[in-house]
Amino acid sequence: MKSLNVRQLFDYDTWTYTYLLWCNKTKHCLLIDPVFEQVERDLSLIEKLGLNLKFVLETHVHADHITGASLIKSKKDIKIVYGSKTGVKGADIYLDDNEILKLGNENIQALHTPGHTSGCTSYYIDGYIFTGDTLFIDGTGRTDFQGGSSSDTYDSVTKKIYNYPNDTIVFPGHNYNGLTMSTIGEEKKSNPNVGLHIKKEDFILNESKKERPYPKRFDVAVPANMKCGKK
Amino acid sequence: MKSLNVRQLFDYDTWTYTYLLWCNKTKHCLLIDPVFEQVERDLSLIEKLGLNLKFVLETHVHADHITGASLIKSKKDIKIVYGSKTGVKGADIYLDDNEILKLGNENIQALHTPGHTSGCTSYYIDGYIFTGDTLFIDGTGRTDFQGGSSSDTYDSVTKKIYNYPNDTIVFPGHNYNGLTMSTIGEEKKSNPNVGLHIKKEDFILNESKKERPYPKRFDVAVPANMKCGKK
Repeated sequence: MKSLNVRQLFDYDTWTYTYLLWCNKTKHCLLIDPVFEQVERDLSLIEKLGLNLKFVLETHVHADHITGASLIKSKKDIKIVYGSKTGVKGADIYLDDNEILKLGNENIQALHTPGHTSGCTSYYIDGYIFTGDTLFIDGTGRTDFQGGSSSDTYDSVTKKIYNYPNDTIVFPGHNYNGLTMSTIGEEKKSNPNVGLHIKKEDFILNESKKERPYPKRFDVAVPANMKCGKK
Repeated sequence: MKSLNVRQLFDYDTWTYTYLLWCNKTKHCLLIDPVFEQVERDLSLIEKLGLNLKFVLETHVHADHITGASLIKSKKDIKIVYGSKTGVKGADIYLDDNEILKLGNENIQALHTPGHTSGCTSYYIDGYIFTGDTLFIDGTGRTDFQGGSSSDTYDSVTKKIYNYPNDTIVFPGHNYNGLTMSTIGEEKKSNPNVGLHIKKEDFILNESKKERPYPKRFDVAVPANMKCGKK
């Protein structure tokens, strides 16, 4: 049996992927990017699996949904974890670039991967990388608010995320086409935004031309998420 | 590298899971339950991954969406595969209970698992079981049309599907709660319909009391799917 287990969860309303990770030996688990409205589902699954929830990790300050972090903390003895560049108030642990968090016998590594927001954090563990809205399958997160920078996205992806082996599984924060996972090798080869065949200046130019709608929940989600999802 | 790869795909409109499976050594691949409207996405992914599509397998005659099988066959040199009890016309291969189909170096085993429909077929391969609408995560498919039988569902699940090891990954045909996978062990323990703590007579009684809406696409989907998705 593998030591690490990963379970992907989907929020239908916001197309958000939440991830449940656990160490098979200790049964310690963590959630990455839980959605407020799905907290009951997530905690039910954790109970069903007989796991012990230790952490909630966030990849960034989401603009499209409110995190379930604070609601979970009101129910369970957990620590809320953010990247140290997010500016978020009220988290228990702020991980710096390359810092390691122990999950039972497993190590999860934080990576500062700015671009979609200035504080975006990806997480690597045992052949999986959780890229939030920095690297999508066949795409990248928008860079037009919250300190976003297409130059940063390009560098985060090509200089940090792409350092992992080609068979590393990429688990993104969203997908809007029904795809659930990818690999580093696939994105290097085929990602139309940040594949290795795309030059940085072309990516930046292409991003600057994109017109994106104002996120519906921006004015509610961002202020709440700057406080770990407290409404 | 594992010899078998599995990629889960989601159709947002019908909450349907499609699965792409491939043999790493030969790059031969197959699709389980492709959705008509997603054929372009599925074929694009196969091309991106450099795979050679050999088969489309169906778990049953769907009532909620039209299969992409015939559309795919009009574009690619593939064989359409159904269980031998489905009554479907125009397929290339009809698999009997326990019959094996070769996918490159891998063996995929058909299991006749009636209940949701009289011809339902599950597929087992290398630690994964694709249960269609026979066994869901925390549930089972409705049994009130297309030769459905709750007695059959109970027997199919408890006498056939549950014979596989507890750590076998269960990949269902749908989930309406954002869950993507489960295991045989989890369903045996916790499935509220057909967990091992549920007696057959109680399941049958419970099913008989359920009121379910008439499927929106039933009158279009079933006639088309009886002909492999030809409209």
